[in-house]
Amino acid sequence: MGAKQDFLERVNDIHRLGALQGHLGWDRETLMPGKGAAARSDILAWLAAESHRRMVDGELGALLDAVAEEAAMDPDLGATVREVERSRARALRLPESFVSAFARHRSIAQGTWQDARAASDFAAFAPHLHTLVEMTKERVHLLGVEGPTYDALLDDYEIGSTMAAYDPLFAGLKGRLVTLLGHIMDASAAHAMPTLPEGAIFPVAAQEAFCRKVSEHMGFDFEAGRMDVSTHPFSAGLWPGDTRFTTRFDERDPFSCLYAVMHETGHALYEQGLPKAHALTPRGKAISLGVHESQSRFWENQIGRTEAFWTVAGPWFHDAFPHLPPMDAATMNTIANRVEPGFIRVEADEVTYNLHIMLRYELEKAMFNGEVAVDDVPSTWNTMFREWFGLDVPDDRRGCLQDIHWSMGAFGYFPTYTLGNLYAAQLLEAMAKDIGDVDGLVASGSWSAPLLWLRERVHERGSLLLPEALIEEATGKAPTPEPFLNYLEGKYTALYGL
Amino acid sequence: MGAKQDFLERVNDIHRLGALQGHLGWDRETLMPGKGAAARSDILAWLAAESHRRMVDGELGALLDAVAEEAAMDPDLGATVREVERSRARALRLPESFVSAFARHRSIAQGTWQDARAASDFAAFAPHLHTLVEMTKERVHLLGVEGPTYDALLDDYEIGSTMAAYDPLFAGLKGRLVTLLGHIMDASAAHAMPTLPEGAIFPVAAQEAFCRKVSEHMGFDFEAGRMDVSTHPFSAGLWPGDTRFTTRFDERDPFSCLYAVMHETGHALYEQGLPKAHALTPRGKAISLGVHESQSRFWENQIGRTEAFWTVAGPWFHDAFPHLPPMDAATMNTIANRVEPGFIRVEADEVTYNLHIMLRYELEKAMFNGEVAVDDVPSTWNTMFREWFGLDVPDDRRGCLQDIHWSMGAFGYFPTYTLGNLYAAQLLEAMAKDIGDVDGLVASGSWSAPLLWLRERVHERGSLLLPEALIEEATGKAPTPEPFLNYLEGKYTALYGL
Repeated sequence: MGAKQDFLERVNDIHRLGALQGHLGWDRETLMPGKGAAARSDILAWLAAESHRRMVDGELGALLDAVAEEAAMDPDLGATVREVERSRARALRLPESFVSAFARHRSIAQGTWQDARAASDFAAFAPHLHTLVEMTKERVHLLGVEGPTYDALLDDYEIGSTMAAYDPLFAGLKGRLVTLLGHIMDASAAHAMPTLPEGAIFPVAAQEAFCRKVSEHMGFDFEAGRMDVSTHPFSAGLWPGDTRFTTRFDERDPFSCLYAVMHETGHALYEQGLPKAHALTPRGKAISLGVHESQSRFWENQIGRTEAFWTVAGPWFHDAFPHLPPMDAATMNTIANRVEPGFIRVEADEVTYNLHIMLRYELEKAMFNGEVAVDDVPSTWNTMFREWFGLDVPDDRRGCLQDIHWSMGAFGYFPTYTLGNLYAAQLLEAMAKDIGDVDGLVASGSWSAPLLWLRERVHERGSLLLPEALIEEATGKAPTPEPFLNYLEGKYTALYGL
Repeated sequence: MGAKQDFLERVNDIHRLGALQGHLGWDRETLMPGKGAAARSDILAWLAAESHRRMVDGELGALLDAVAEEAAMDPDLGATVREVERSRARALRLPESFVSAFARHRSIAQGTWQDARAASDFAAFAPHLHTLVEMTKERVHLLGVEGPTYDALLDDYEIGSTMAAYDPLFAGLKGRLVTLLGHIMDASAAHAMPTLPEGAIFPVAAQEAFCRKVSEHMGFDFEAGRMDVSTHPFSAGLWPGDTRFTTRFDERDPFSCLYAVMHETGHALYEQGLPKAHALTPRGKAISLGVHESQSRFWENQIGRTEAFWTVAGPWFHDAFPHLPPMDAATMNTIANRVEPGFIRVEADEVTYNLHIMLRYELEKAMFNGEVAVDDVPSTWNTMFREWFGLDVPDDRRGCLQDIHWSMGAFGYFPTYTLGNLYAAQLLEAMAKDIGDVDGLVASGSWSAPLLWLRERVHERGSLLLPEALIEEATGKAPTPEPFLNYLEGKYTALYGL
């Protein structure tokens, strides 16, 4: 057996273990009965340890050396080698004792956070947050990364990202978003905006049928995937030919389910479009969280929150909910694009969403450079929120306890959401240059043209290129916030006649 | 680390791999989208190979030697050692090339069988059946088992069982069952038996709610398990704290779902009652197919097909289906115990069921001792069926192609179903001596007393004792068909006034 084949078989095995973790994680969020939790933690930890053991195996190291020359001339193999080297370097530097202690603390912190959020009791969560921050610093120290801790965390979630890149990006974004928000709030105060009828009920079965239809029309292959229900919607490419996403239902708000489905279908289409020839290797995986989020936000916002979309989906919506008064596509779209500063990130509109992200980014930076102590997180959060959103946070449940990320030790993750928004707008702009009037295509019901463009430029590329290079190759220019700001200003100028 | 701990950790790992196979198998039957099949086959084969590799590992052999002395004095460890030795001896004798070739042929045969059954085309299946019979003989040869091939197969599915034991057992059973059947047919020809109203529809949601209530009342812990839907109902103890069973719905026949649920809940209660202290070792697993089937049949028949059961469940049934005319418990029970010779084993009543099993047993014997060639299976089947049931088999779909077992290479499996029926009746008889009037308890709604008795005598014993010893310990006598025949003759004498 040649070194390349031997190397790839070892990589396949590690990916099989990862896929098993993914499947059991999906099952835990959707189906697992409560008393199955302990055994589930056991098997997930076991799979992680098996995977770690194989990743640090000396023979894998020898094979990496053996294929290095071939990898330099074979870009597919090169991408897999690049990602395996990155993962292996980390695995080698983290002692198993630290990895399991960190996993245990994260698991405990997550349980505590759930209760603390429900009770809006930050004090109960604070010691755990403190431990996770300290262990995260320790982790970066063990990894031996040069430079500020927070840069290492940013790079963890989006390869190559730094504060030096985010700081000016976010400063520029914030200025124009705050200005735009002011104009929108003035305009919507001036005239009553349409809403769905107060108190109307949207039966779950009808919502499900409507949303399945939208997802199918977007191109999701239900023969190669499923839609299920979970508390927090998510998407997971479990196996080649088996990609699953979830949603949730609110009988009083059909848009909650619809846009969750469009968002998760966007993620799921990326998974379904990854190159099957490279399954079970990094080359065949999605390259980054930021790029993944660009796919979900593209379908949720660039397609789903347009008059063109409602031209097609409006009649389906009225068929599903025949008790509603007739509303044209423009009206449906205005309702779907309502802007209103609120406390909760996941409920935020496109204008305020990135302000939520930037607030978290600034606060994380301050936690890791020592400017803000863990105990001061609520007061700092609330002061910033007052300043940025003009709102007084009523309790920590709707403030600094709202997101799960910190309880999972995921610091530096939030900015990838904003990257996703920026990439999505940049992809739309480039797509329009290639395939023409995207709104026109969407309004005519031809949603396959945007999908095919994304398949070719993004999905099929897998992990061949690093995120910035992928976006540059796909759009002809390096990532920039201009397309996003132009898109948003253009959309709201038209909607509100600014 | 002591040898015992090291040994048990290796055993745990093998059981984790088995549990992963079980979980992915459950998912395949209930949820997996069609295009996920190839990747699912890949991961199941990979898990099987990983498990095999660990089972034949020389270090496991050394540890078996190292713990032998301790195992002789520790019955829990002894049971685990006994089962691991049994599995390891087989794994060592079967070359991986044979195992994977056999698995591949079974997988191909199963697909062919599905099509052949649908088309009632035995000729299409015959070459595959021939291959599987030959490979099964080869497997027994590789295992180096002494004596007739079919004995080795019987022992595969129920440790210690032989033709020498089954032949007289089945001969005795057959005589009295055929006599009983004759009496019942005469009696039911003489007076019209009650039925559910012709053409009534039983909505799926109401069936589901009714069946969940029955399952819950039987003692199934829905916090530690689930009920789902699949083509063929089955039950699987996936993980400690996570046992799942499935059912199916027929809108015209509510008993199909009810008795599937009671049957599968019986299996699932066994799984939920296994000793958690011995999880992930053979000691903590169910001992055999026959004992497993005794638990399902006990609840399905000994409890579920009684007037006592309908005294409690009848009002729930009428609440679920308010359009039905009122029927008392005796009437419901008569309907549930209707006897009618038919072609299909899984639809058979308690009297004819074991005749279906014996027919398969005789035919399998004849296939493996060379008396019946594969090509002659349909004609032999049909001749025997005419003789035993008085019916002409109209096509092979309702004859020798009806069951999946042969296509899976499972020869020698069927007799465990009859063992289950015999054990169930013997357990009921012994239980009544301990806890008194079981019918009275069931009619009063106290279903926990039978369950607690089974928990203590069967479930908690796991694999401590071999099947016959377990039944003897639980009931005070070696397994015998008398309790079953007495139960059945008593039941039908009362029901039909024989």
